[in-house]
Amino acid sequence: MIPRYSRPEMAAIWSPESKYRIWFEIEAHAADAMAELGTIPKEAAAAVWRARDLEFDIDRIDAIEREVKHDVIAFLTHLAELVGPEARFVHQGMTSSDVLDTCLNVQLTRAADILIADTDALLAALKTRAMEHRDTPCIGRSHGIHAEPTTFGLKLAQAYAEFDRARARLVAARAEIATCAISGAVGTFANIDPAVEEHVAAKLGLAVEPVSTQVIPRDRHAAFFAALGVVASSVERLATEIRHLQRTEVLEAEEYFSPGQKGSSAMPHKRNPILTENLTGLARMVRAYALPAMENVALWHERDISHSSVERMIGPDATVTLDFALARLTGVIEKLVIYPERMQANLDRTRGLVHSQRVLLALTQAGLSRENAYRAVQRNAMKVWEQGADFLAELKADDEVASALDDAALEALFDLGYHLKRVDVIFARVFGAG
Amino acid sequence: MIPRYSRPEMAAIWSPESKYRIWFEIEAHAADAMAELGTIPKEAAAAVWRARDLEFDIDRIDAIEREVKHDVIAFLTHLAELVGPEARFVHQGMTSSDVLDTCLNVQLTRAADILIADTDALLAALKTRAMEHRDTPCIGRSHGIHAEPTTFGLKLAQAYAEFDRARARLVAARAEIATCAISGAVGTFANIDPAVEEHVAAKLGLAVEPVSTQVIPRDRHAAFFAALGVVASSVERLATEIRHLQRTEVLEAEEYFSPGQKGSSAMPHKRNPILTENLTGLARMVRAYALPAMENVALWHERDISHSSVERMIGPDATVTLDFALARLTGVIEKLVIYPERMQANLDRTRGLVHSQRVLLALTQAGLSRENAYRAVQRNAMKVWEQGADFLAELKADDEVASALDDAALEALFDLGYHLKRVDVIFARVFGAG
Amino acid sequence: MIPRYSRPEMAAIWSPESKYRIWFEIEAHAADAMAELGTIPKEAAAAVWRARDLEFDIDRIDAIEREVKHDVIAFLTHLAELVGPEARFVHQGMTSSDVLDTCLNVQLTRAADILIADTDALLAALKTRAMEHRDTPCIGRSHGIHAEPTTFGLKLAQAYAEFDRARARLVAARAEIATCAISGAVGTFANIDPAVEEHVAAKLGLAVEPVSTQVIPRDRHAAFFAALGVVASSVERLATEIRHLQRTEVLEAEEYFSPGQKGSSAMPHKRNPILTENLTGLARMVRAYALPAMENVALWHERDISHSSVERMIGPDATVTLDFALARLTGVIEKLVIYPERMQANLDRTRGLVHSQRVLLALTQAGLSRENAYRAVQRNAMKVWEQGADFLAELKADDEVASALDDAALEALFDLGYHLKRVDVIFARVFGAG
Amino acid sequence: MIPRYSRPEMAAIWSPESKYRIWFEIEAHAADAMAELGTIPKEAAAAVWRARDLEFDIDRIDAIEREVKHDVIAFLTHLAELVGPEARFVHQGMTSSDVLDTCLNVQLTRAADILIADTDALLAALKTRAMEHRDTPCIGRSHGIHAEPTTFGLKLAQAYAEFDRARARLVAARAEIATCAISGAVGTFANIDPAVEEHVAAKLGLAVEPVSTQVIPRDRHAAFFAALGVVASSVERLATEIRHLQRTEVLEAEEYFSPGQKGSSAMPHKRNPILTENLTGLARMVRAYALPAMENVALWHERDISHSSVERMIGPDATVTLDFALARLTGVIEKLVIYPERMQANLDRTRGLVHSQRVLLALTQAGLSRENAYRAVQRNAMKVWEQGADFLAELKADDEVASALDDAALEALFDLGYHLKRVDVIFARVFGAG
Repeated sequence: MIPRYSRPEMAAIWSPESKYRIWFEIEAHAADAMAELGTIPKEAAAAVWRARDLEFDIDRIDAIEREVKHDVIAFLTHLAELVGPEARFVHQGMTSSDVLDTCLNVQLTRAADILIADTDALLAALKTRAMEHRDTPCIGRSHGIHAEPTTFGLKLAQAYAEFDRARARLVAARAEIATCAISGAVGTFANIDPAVEEHVAAKLGLAVEPVSTQVIPRDRHAAFFAALGVVASSVERLATEIRHLQRTEVLEAEEYFSPGQKGSSAMPHKRNPILTENLTGLARMVRAYALPAMENVALWHERDISHSSVERMIGPDATVTLDFALARLTGVIEKLVIYPERMQANLDRTRGLVHSQRVLLALTQAGLSRENAYRAVQRNAMKVWEQGADFLAELKADDEVASALDDAALEALFDLGYHLKRVDVIFARVFGAG
Repeated sequence: MIPRYSRPEMAAIWSPESKYRIWFEIEAHAADAMAELGTIPKEAAAAVWRARDLEFDIDRIDAIEREVKHDVIAFLTHLAELVGPEARFVHQGMTSSDVLDTCLNVQLTRAADILIADTDALLAALKTRAMEHRDTPCIGRSHGIHAEPTTFGLKLAQAYAEFDRARARLVAARAEIATCAISGAVGTFANIDPAVEEHVAAKLGLAVEPVSTQVIPRDRHAAFFAALGVVASSVERLATEIRHLQRTEVLEAEEYFSPGQKGSSAMPHKRNPILTENLTGLARMVRAYALPAMENVALWHERDISHSSVERMIGPDATVTLDFALARLTGVIEKLVIYPERMQANLDRTRGLVHSQRVLLALTQAGLSRENAYRAVQRNAMKVWEQGADFLAELKADDEVASALDDAALEALFDLGYHLKRVDVIFARVFGAG
Repeated sequence: MIPRYSRPEMAAIWSPESKYRIWFEIEAHAADAMAELGTIPKEAAAAVWRARDLEFDIDRIDAIEREVKHDVIAFLTHLAELVGPEARFVHQGMTSSDVLDTCLNVQLTRAADILIADTDALLAALKTRAMEHRDTPCIGRSHGIHAEPTTFGLKLAQAYAEFDRARARLVAARAEIATCAISGAVGTFANIDPAVEEHVAAKLGLAVEPVSTQVIPRDRHAAFFAALGVVASSVERLATEIRHLQRTEVLEAEEYFSPGQKGSSAMPHKRNPILTENLTGLARMVRAYALPAMENVALWHERDISHSSVERMIGPDATVTLDFALARLTGVIEKLVIYPERMQANLDRTRGLVHSQRVLLALTQAGLSRENAYRAVQRNAMKVWEQGADFLAELKADDEVASALDDAALEALFDLGYHLKRVDVIFARVFGAG
Repeated sequence: MIPRYSRPEMAAIWSPESKYRIWFEIEAHAADAMAELGTIPKEAAAAVWRARDLEFDIDRIDAIEREVKHDVIAFLTHLAELVGPEARFVHQGMTSSDVLDTCLNVQLTRAADILIADTDALLAALKTRAMEHRDTPCIGRSHGIHAEPTTFGLKLAQAYAEFDRARARLVAARAEIATCAISGAVGTFANIDPAVEEHVAAKLGLAVEPVSTQVIPRDRHAAFFAALGVVASSVERLATEIRHLQRTEVLEAEEYFSPGQKGSSAMPHKRNPILTENLTGLARMVRAYALPAMENVALWHERDISHSSVERMIGPDATVTLDFALARLTGVIEKLVIYPERMQANLDRTRGLVHSQRVLLALTQAGLSRENAYRAVQRNAMKVWEQGADFLAELKADDEVASALDDAALEALFDLGYHLKRVDVIFARVFGAG
């Protein structure tokens, strides 16, 4: 997480202020539940809530932590300074991890909410542009080589479907980590009633962790960060598509350049797809964070603390970077400059050869043997490819072809509509009936 | 995937025989659909099914492939040899990837089914042993250091809950890749009716891929292999727990040794946890396979074939290895030799100190200031720790403590039951009300 | 490691035959050293060598292993069957890991030798083609966008320099794992003289491991596999370059297609860069294997056996795959079809704009202010870019430009030689003075 | 890179101030070289150096960057504000990457220097403690199970040898990235004399990059970060050893606790190995950064900018984290509390069984058949293991054993010195002759 690739709302989740605010809520809700159970005085719980509208003094907490070398104790000490002596009832029977782990899950849950909203914005942008270019023909490519026609809208519909899956993965990832554990030193509830956990969970919108050790099990977090890695890989895919389309030789689409912006001092074609290149790099990072999250699962016995340093880094790093990437990608899609005439020019670059398979089929149906049909298509196709001829003209001039298919029949085969006739069916699948 | 770490059922999914059988089914079902649509003669579809009970000659297909350098064409050529001339209607309007990608997803779906069944077996084993040792006390450890008492059953209940989540992840992973695409060269259905895809999908128990390019999008596979990596990490966690418990100094549980088996030539304690060590290594491998799967997502345009070599390796490697690991882990759990008396001995190793927090609390409630109570506990605890004394005896002999709590009161505090009183509640959460 | 992506020489290193042969050599050389020290009878050592020319019966060893569940003992038992009773002196004071770890390092060392030879072949191919096209101009691209001219030979010289570094990394990786340890159960030489280790090491061309535990430390192996991952990434880079050059719109180079080979049934341009796409996938795999190798480093205490399952997989998988990849890449380079005329056509695609910066500089030197020079270049460049005009013609027709630079002066600026004048200097750096 | 896990010297390398200072030096040295070549006026170069002792105004540069959206131009503009009009001669014929890439390599080189110094400090600490405990006996463990005796010094000598290799890897990694490229837009030196590059390289203590594109090839950086990942894995290994030794049941060594420090409120044994647990997590992170560095290698053509976002993160993250980890580990080793008496107690825990192999050997040498000797050792060992008897006493009382070996002979076999007799040889290998 570096400022250059951060957005304020996501970064704020990871600020000390947010963290202490969540700690406060966990402790205060727990105090309520304990008061209800009669474990602590009701006035104590009420007193805690007095801090609700107060500011925590981060520097003060830091100063206490330097002294006591324990972050949760430092916070509780400062809370007592704000709340008064009733604060001594706070945290009773709880262990630090109850606060820390539940807080982390609140943060990750909030982060997931932002990422889901990011994906919604991206989906909206993709849908708008897909509808706009549903029928804009362009060449489909396999292996980087021209294959058969498709439409630009179809490319975006593919991306839409992929990010719709990404959204579902983020929703599932959110569910993975939306749990609360307040179960004590080794998860036995020896010193705390499970009702406290249930109350806090309900108040924070979390599920109860069915069984914890000292900590919430880290397979949940591994699944969460792995999901982010998969979503980032989809970001990379769409970014790569745009980078390819913007290549000088292809130039079917371009990242938006503001009027004043200069790609290069003198060469006006030097508009670089720097945003999508940047997204490619960011995807590599988000993906990389999935690994230490998986290595974190096998903690020793009821817990060791090796996961903590990892999470202090990848918690912010993965969520902030993916948030930035999704938002940047949305901007790229919204403002993408699309060149339908270049798409057509590229389609025409092989001078009709994209229709060769259909000609082959028609010749066969017109009675030629498959071998003869193939040879006929092949010899004319080679002329087009090697000598720059026009495929339709060559076919018309070929005696064997002409004897099977007249000019009108041949012309009818050179119909882009043939390839695009089911775009509507696919759009209905992806976007629903219109 | 190496024979040493393979089980036959899973390995069989990846055999040439399985692959060609699936290819056959895809082609035959597609032929049925085309015949229904009138695209090909009904007799042609019927003829194809004649091969249903025939053996494919793998060597023959290989020989053809060496000649034509195309695996699907080689298969279709061999099919024609078996079926006769009607075979020429097979595969019409389809592209190789329609067959290859749908086949891979059938294989991964079947693999997921085995993995889910593996997890069920593991869950059953965990439940049995958890119930058996629900109330077997043992020390809970954080940071590898004794913390507070728990039960061995609770450890297994934690593992049960984790593998229950693992099962859900496998079910979700299965859904991710249970799709069928028969949509032609760039996914436009230019030469094939979407009804064919729908028919084949239904027959194979797959969903229709809403929008494909030439291939099924690889974010699905990335999510699949990432899920396997997370499940493998849970395998590593439980394996690590057992390795720790079997350490010479701990020895609370051991992998089963058959009567004749020798750990070491002369030292009878040399029983090594080699199965769980092995599982630790296998987990590393399954986890590693998630990465190239994620890198596979960003194929160029409508497809490039860089994913193929990766999948030829990780398809078998990840599923076979995880299957082997889950089955091995199940065996380890089923036969795990558990030593309750050693668990008790380890609990007693700190001579009562595990109850120190409760004594502290009781002293406070009995009227001592928190500071005095703390000092009293601390000075007696230090004697226990440093001089090997017994904590309860020391407390009884301490005037300040004794003035607050009499012998009976102190003895009551040294009650394991206090720590284990909510084991039932947790078991009900994990296994349901009994 | 799958047959499809294996070459016999490298695969043979990992065969049971090779493994047992190396075990034999370790045991036999160790016997010699022990005989020399007087630990065992000289006749015993001599007897062992009688097995030198015998075949080991793999099935027999397997059968014994199934019984005794120990691979090294199974081998020694079989060896005794071949050698007779003197075999009982073999392996005295040694531990299985002495044999297994030293054998693995022999295998990795041999694998490294093949990889180094592979790299030499690739370097030779790159040098040949680089020399051939030292002066073949082509456009240099940054961000996929045309930048300034370079030569195709220079691209290959870059690859040459990169694989020269790769070679050095392989040599260093070889040195990392070319060690021998024969030091007993925990590395103390309690039961064996260090002279045995020294003798075996010398005979096998290995260095002595200065200090081992039961095993050779795994940081060596981690460094080895990490180096392979870096080399694979260089394979991916060159493969990616070729994939880009073969794109339909670029088509400056193509993987060789044999005369009879068909890319697609009818479209002659459908020649897909399938070899380099395949290499891209293989690189992902080799890279992935570096991770479990790094996780293997932190074995517990004097050793645990978690590394073993990992190495049984990545030992063959990483070396066989990289060997295959390097050899395939060499073939691609040797036979690469290069189209200088297309390179020139692509250079000309921006109709002279590649010279715009030089014009700008010349105008400044001819007395225009930088601002005026920039505006003059820019307005003519825009006409070229947007209206398809010719840059030189436009400049000649521009009054402000013409007043500063006459036609001859302008023409002189449109000189590819200006960009290529230091190719020789760079070649001398890379290939040495010729 | 987060403040919690950062040390100031390493973090400073990555500050804006450091970056701009390095940019300045590159530009100023380049100006000198150009002046020497006569490309720019000597006064211009002299003028640039006037900024040598000035502070760059980071906020001002940021403000300019927001306007021109180009970091190098922003810097040059600010430089001109400081230096005056002669600044227009700066950067002539150079491209931004010349500055950025050379700067990054200067930063990584400096980072490597710190890491090497860190390793030297760690080596010194390891050597001191190894010498101190060269002869402190402790049990060696394989699979976590007691094996044979070793010494604590030998464990540290193993770590020393491993970090000595780590040091060599860091030195090699430094050499990998200690290069300078000033070669223009596509690396052809079209607008700049290679002599400039040579001069700047010499002044900055870098080698000349033999052939660059627009950028320095990223295989160098991949090798660099992979090396860091391997070193981090060695940190994890030593950290894991200490975590194991500090387990309650083992307790042979402990991280230092300051007198006032409390592990837990009441349980004095609750001293957690939190530093080494933390190191375990940090190692996971440094390892993870190797992957995106490897993915960065395959940039498109002469460069794309996808590597940049990755390096903005992992440049600081990997170096700062590893620096922190190495320094922390050094502190842990320097102050490690070592308990020789506990080591002895653990050695004795199996009541003499660690000598069983030697007894077996002695019985064989005394004339018993191997089978009988084995049975004799085994039956006595089982009594020790299962009934808590003393091995030596049992052997003395066993008729068959006693008939072969008298009491004195048996006692002589229970000699730790037998196992430790070659510690000196190993120390001489690791630390050199003393």
